[in-house]
Amino acid sequence: MKEFFKVQTPDQLYKKMDRFKPLSFEKVSLEDALRRVLYEDILSPSNIPEFPRSTVDGFAVRAEDTYGTSEKNPALLRVVGEILMGQVSDIELKDGEAIKVATGGMVAKGANAVEMVEYTEPVDPQTIHVFKALSPLENVMQIAEDIKEGEIVLRQGHWIRPQDMGLMAAIGKTDLFVYRQPRVAIISSGDEIVPVETSPSPGQVRDVNRYTVFSMVKESGGIPTFLGIAKDRFDDLKEKIELGLRQADMVVFTGGSSVGTLDLTGEVLQVFPATEILGHGISIRPGKPTLLADIGGKPFLGLPGHPVSAIVIFHFFGKPILRILSGFSREGIWHQIKVKAKTTRNIPSVSGREDYVRVKLEEKDGVLLADPVFGKSGAIRHLAQANGLVRIDINEEGLEAGEEVDVILI
Amino acid sequence: MKEFFKVQTPDQLYKKMDRFKPLSFEKVSLEDALRRVLYEDILSPSNIPEFPRSTVDGFAVRAEDTYGTSEKNPALLRVVGEILMGQVSDIELKDGEAIKVATGGMVAKGANAVEMVEYTEPVDPQTIHVFKALSPLENVMQIAEDIKEGEIVLRQGHWIRPQDMGLMAAIGKTDLFVYRQPRVAIISSGDEIVPVETSPSPGQVRDVNRYTVFSMVKESGGIPTFLGIAKDRFDDLKEKIELGLRQADMVVFTGGSSVGTLDLTGEVLQVFPATEILGHGISIRPGKPTLLADIGGKPFLGLPGHPVSAIVIFHFFGKPILRILSGFSREGIWHQIKVKAKTTRNIPSVSGREDYVRVKLEEKDGVLLADPVFGKSGAIRHLAQANGLVRIDINEEGLEAGEEVDVILI
Repeated sequence: MKEFFKVQTPDQLYKKMDRFKPLSFEKVSLEDALRRVLYEDILSPSNIPEFPRSTVDGFAVRAEDTYGTSEKNPALLRVVGEILMGQVSDIELKDGEAIKVATGGMVAKGANAVEMVEYTEPVDPQTIHVFKALSPLENVMQIAEDIKEGEIVLRQGHWIRPQDMGLMAAIGKTDLFVYRQPRVAIISSGDEIVPVETSPSPGQVRDVNRYTVFSMVKESGGIPTFLGIAKDRFDDLKEKIELGLRQADMVVFTGGSSVGTLDLTGEVLQVFPATEILGHGISIRPGKPTLLADIGGKPFLGLPGHPVSAIVIFHFFGKPILRILSGFSREGIWHQIKVKAKTTRNIPSVSGREDYVRVKLEEKDGVLLADPVFGKSGAIRHLAQANGLVRIDINEEGLEAGEEVDVILI
Repeated sequence: MKEFFKVQTPDQLYKKMDRFKPLSFEKVSLEDALRRVLYEDILSPSNIPEFPRSTVDGFAVRAEDTYGTSEKNPALLRVVGEILMGQVSDIELKDGEAIKVATGGMVAKGANAVEMVEYTEPVDPQTIHVFKALSPLENVMQIAEDIKEGEIVLRQGHWIRPQDMGLMAAIGKTDLFVYRQPRVAIISSGDEIVPVETSPSPGQVRDVNRYTVFSMVKESGGIPTFLGIAKDRFDDLKEKIELGLRQADMVVFTGGSSVGTLDLTGEVLQVFPATEILGHGISIRPGKPTLLADIGGKPFLGLPGHPVSAIVIFHFFGKPILRILSGFSREGIWHQIKVKAKTTRNIPSVSGREDYVRVKLEEKDGVLLADPVFGKSGAIRHLAQANGLVRIDINEEGLEAGEEVDVILI
């Protein structure tokens, strides 16, 4: 059991996450596809547009008829009709003719450009002046110019955003295959931890991690279930973890405040067949006691009980694992939103471990400032004050006031 | 009706949004509070911690007993007991004594500091050496040091994040008052628009906006309902808008591709008593034809039918209005996530209007690049290619390649 305590770098542990695999898939209707992950490549079943379409309000014309025109030297064209929105027309345009068309409307046969209405002037009901020379295909979207039949428009592993919903609607994709969402069992532990409804006796504290971890799992696309608070005893831990492994695709466990809990948990995990401890102890602050195991293909993540540590570790280890199970593309798994900001103070750090410093982002005179939230370990107040994390590399020794840093939004 | 066409700047229209007010409130349990908006200030009902707590694993001692100690000159202390996690103890520490305590455990009476276990060494079962001098209160969190009884920890208008869930759990806030979520009726329109299940005839296109607007409303905390596709006719528009006003707190309407639809819609709105058109036409691109009205206190937002325009305008006008109805704080209403990036190409613009250029963000050699997604108006493909928007100010005339710009994430 000695290897439990061999502290690893975050990168060493990240590499070991490769072993986890996406879950199976299911069919959903487009309406339910937002923020799900594509299991299939999405191919367009047809050309878009399927007809030549005007991109402006105006008159479909032959570009040749507009050559050499100007404000002072307009061309005179005969208006031979109008193609209404959503209508098809067989009219074929001839020399010197124009057909009225709205944005998105069909461009008549024979026409190869559309003069914007702003550059025309009615002369009489059947005749217009056009003032602007057009090149062929100007203001026309040709058949298949936007999307070609059979073209892949979105790839497997893509996380579906509102704009992707629109894209799939455009090609008529009403049902699609997405990865199944991971079910995540959450277990709190610690003899001093009481449920939130309870008024804690002196020496006890309420279960904070249940709510933060639950929320983070939800926002990362998982389906969280809370299994309760385990006592710091072998049998109780074993029973809850066993239940979690049976019910869920991943178990997230938060140790009590005591360092010993995660050690005991490591021993409990040995009970299950096919358990492999991937790491216990990371050279990171906060979050050093973190425990990661593979139990027959299911990830088990043991977070430190300290609420701030639990948030940081879930962000950097729990979220990528959930994304792997959810079928995210490689790029998507590690994606973080980062903004650049200037530190307001010196931030000390110790070389040999990766530090994550909580900061409060504030804009002052157009400059984004990252103000470190210092405080005694375990402070709850600081939990909600920070909205960003600054990473100090394992080889760095702190940051100086005024330095520009990347802030990871949390 | 002439005033419909007086184009306003975005800022002029933003100012007029002040008239909309947050909806009423409701009680929810903490479990359901994520991403809701606080209607009440959250006060802590008690001190945190309620007992002096150790922030490390070690021994509670009197700091005075450690003065002058070092690796070579340790102090010898008598271990008089252990306070277990979650336990209270009446032991009172005297000169030369130490009590074992874990992180989060209670610091015994008489003790005023905690020596970390790393700086101690057992001599015999009842005696330890301590190597490090402590100042009073070192490694101890005092009563109320974290949060004081009656202190406001979160304010009305705050949008609840995972870390806030933890904060509320810590103070035992099991039920809370939040603003009601706005119900949003969505109406598509256009004679050429067909439902997504339909195979469009030549000249028709599928309803894209239904899905993008629906998704954006959902992600902005609204409850969307789709009322169907209205034909470009006075009666049909009136009927659907009337239904929307009856059922929902806000109506979002997308015009067909034709400019005329939003004009006709403006006329329809005059039918309803207490309609005030706040704007029709904004000096912005894309999205110029946008229509905003106040119908008896309910916002009506008419978006251009063009899918990209509809997304941009919803982002800059629809989202803030939804946030106002949802009770967001002033700061929250206008919050945007922005990152800095370098443009890859010259981006032309016309002074006198605000331009929003879609860009694709890509990191190359550690530099974040914003590559403009140009394309013919109406292209569906570009809808999903961009993940950011660059704003070109109303007084600017474009951007040069390599310029650093703020990119709004979408």
